[in-house]
Amino acid sequence: MTDGLSYRDAGVDLDAAERTKDRLKALVASTRDRFTLSELGAFGGLYRVPDGVAEPVLVSSADGVGTKLKIAFQAGRHDTVGQCLVNHCVNDILVQGARPLFFLDYLATGEMDETVVHDVVQGVAIACKENACALLGGETAQMPDFYAADEYDLAGFIVGIVAQERIIDGSGIREGDVLIGLDSTGLHTNGYTLARRIVFDVMGLGVDDELPGTGHSVAEELLAVHRSYLKLLAPLLDIGIVRGLAHITGGGIPGNLPRVLPEGLGASVSRDAWEVPAVFRTLQEAGKVARDEMDRVFNMGIGMIVVTRPEEADAVVGAAAGSGVGARRIGSIVTGSGVRYQ
Amino acid sequence: MTDGLSYRDAGVDLDAAERTKDRLKALVASTRDRFTLSELGAFGGLYRVPDGVAEPVLVSSADGVGTKLKIAFQAGRHDTVGQCLVNHCVNDILVQGARPLFFLDYLATGEMDETVVHDVVQGVAIACKENACALLGGETAQMPDFYAADEYDLAGFIVGIVAQERIIDGSGIREGDVLIGLDSTGLHTNGYTLARRIVFDVMGLGVDDELPGTGHSVAEELLAVHRSYLKLLAPLLDIGIVRGLAHITGGGIPGNLPRVLPEGLGASVSRDAWEVPAVFRTLQEAGKVARDEMDRVFNMGIGMIVVTRPEEADAVVGAAAGSGVGARRIGSIVTGSGVRYQ
Repeated sequence: MTDGLSYRDAGVDLDAAERTKDRLKALVASTRDRFTLSELGAFGGLYRVPDGVAEPVLVSSADGVGTKLKIAFQAGRHDTVGQCLVNHCVNDILVQGARPLFFLDYLATGEMDETVVHDVVQGVAIACKENACALLGGETAQMPDFYAADEYDLAGFIVGIVAQERIIDGSGIREGDVLIGLDSTGLHTNGYTLARRIVFDVMGLGVDDELPGTGHSVAEELLAVHRSYLKLLAPLLDIGIVRGLAHITGGGIPGNLPRVLPEGLGASVSRDAWEVPAVFRTLQEAGKVARDEMDRVFNMGIGMIVVTRPEEADAVVGAAAGSGVGARRIGSIVTGSGVRYQ
Repeated sequence: MTDGLSYRDAGVDLDAAERTKDRLKALVASTRDRFTLSELGAFGGLYRVPDGVAEPVLVSSADGVGTKLKIAFQAGRHDTVGQCLVNHCVNDILVQGARPLFFLDYLATGEMDETVVHDVVQGVAIACKENACALLGGETAQMPDFYAADEYDLAGFIVGIVAQERIIDGSGIREGDVLIGLDSTGLHTNGYTLARRIVFDVMGLGVDDELPGTGHSVAEELLAVHRSYLKLLAPLLDIGIVRGLAHITGGGIPGNLPRVLPEGLGASVSRDAWEVPAVFRTLQEAGKVARDEMDRVFNMGIGMIVVTRPEEADAVVGAAAGSGVGARRIGSIVTGSGVRYQ
């Protein structure tokens, strides 16, 4: 029987999986909070429902990093994509008024490279700590002849909480309300399939080449960490001056802002209100991409839009400035539907 | 500008994504319950914490389907893997005493085939309904030149709830307690990389060929739906006769049963206690796989192990029989550690 097949022969190394799990324990433990009841290795993660939230509602979202991962593979840098994933998920539940409780990740690889897995999960853990979110568990799957040996996919899942009466669903938005655009850090996690096509195929650049106009390498610019708006927006949610929030992800402003507007209301957005960052201008010119298409694929420099009453707009802009996040009025709520650019 | 690049040129079709989302709405809606507050399309799914659970603890788990997906691709059958995923996750939190609340899926594809995506999510929705679990949201990612056009990966995340004093953590297990093995339906979702190697490379079979000894085709046998043990075990959890539960997944009995045993206790398992199903015997013989390796890779016919007091063992076996699930005593708890086979 000794010359027979083993799981390892077929490409799955259970010992490497065990060693990897041991290395991740400290990372996971670093994110524990007083509600976390389980340790890594349990079948499921245990998290006590925090008391003190009236009529508590759980808010949950799943997301991936998309082909931003390809940039990480090419640059050999694996510690930022996990941060992007967590921050993306945090923003997705923040727009409904929720604060994160816990996060789980799914990491599927062709071959269990213990260092790469560690770096990826380290990024997840860093962002979990920054967002006061416990890394409650996850799955690391070895899938040879499914993923290339040095590639992986990464998905994440977040659960947050909000008191039912504090849910932000946009129903309080009125005509004349102001749109405030908050700076993104770059592409965040959307549009990478088009960006890669332009940068690598059309422009013929490598990850270490400078991306023209940006002063940064392709890797630096395209691996910039997706910004979490939690720290900036949580105090504004607490004092109740936010009427609506739109996280600008796939679909851009036209695809995301209308998702939070009540029936009968649309948005008027002034393209002159902010300077589109160099990375987007470079992509648009090199790819000869129509501006409408750019708006529908990328965030164009605005990662989050806050809808607020006119008299509270200055307070939001001021709070953003205090947090080091660029912010300005970019338009207003009008009768109609969808987004009209001025 | 009209000859410039578009997102669609680069391989991402946002219109197909929108159409797909519309088709999924009815599937998602079919799983709603009275705690579900959101509809598909919100940034995050909203789920009210059920009242009536004393000191509620959330139990969460992430998982994938592994390379069982490859069988689905080869057979062109996409409606079962979603059921496997949900049932796997349901079992993973059930072993800690939790009942499912909601589920989210992550589906990443090379090309958005609307029918395939629909079939996959339909499987997810079917199992969600069977397990009284809301399908609260999910992410469908188009990742061309990452996944092959006709391939996809599928991951899932579940959140369940249990009263803190009803958590099953194995701490009540004592020497002399009885192990009851519950039938699996086949490989469930583990060991597929080795199984595929043996079936396709060593045996040279196709998915429509009969898998010798089983009376079924390779596709039928290897796509059998992972069994959920919720309906069988929930009443036993309610009456408090379960001291420990081990879901037999990757690592087999030796890799999973010890995870729920207290320090100082191990398990004695009799290999003669049950008949190993034909699919495992065929794989073992054809691949010349050592029996120890088989035990560490596959569930060998036992998908769940219940630990109970000797005087309650018959009640568990009887309840299983009433549910149409084969069950029998397979061993007992002994001093020591790990699993010893007799």
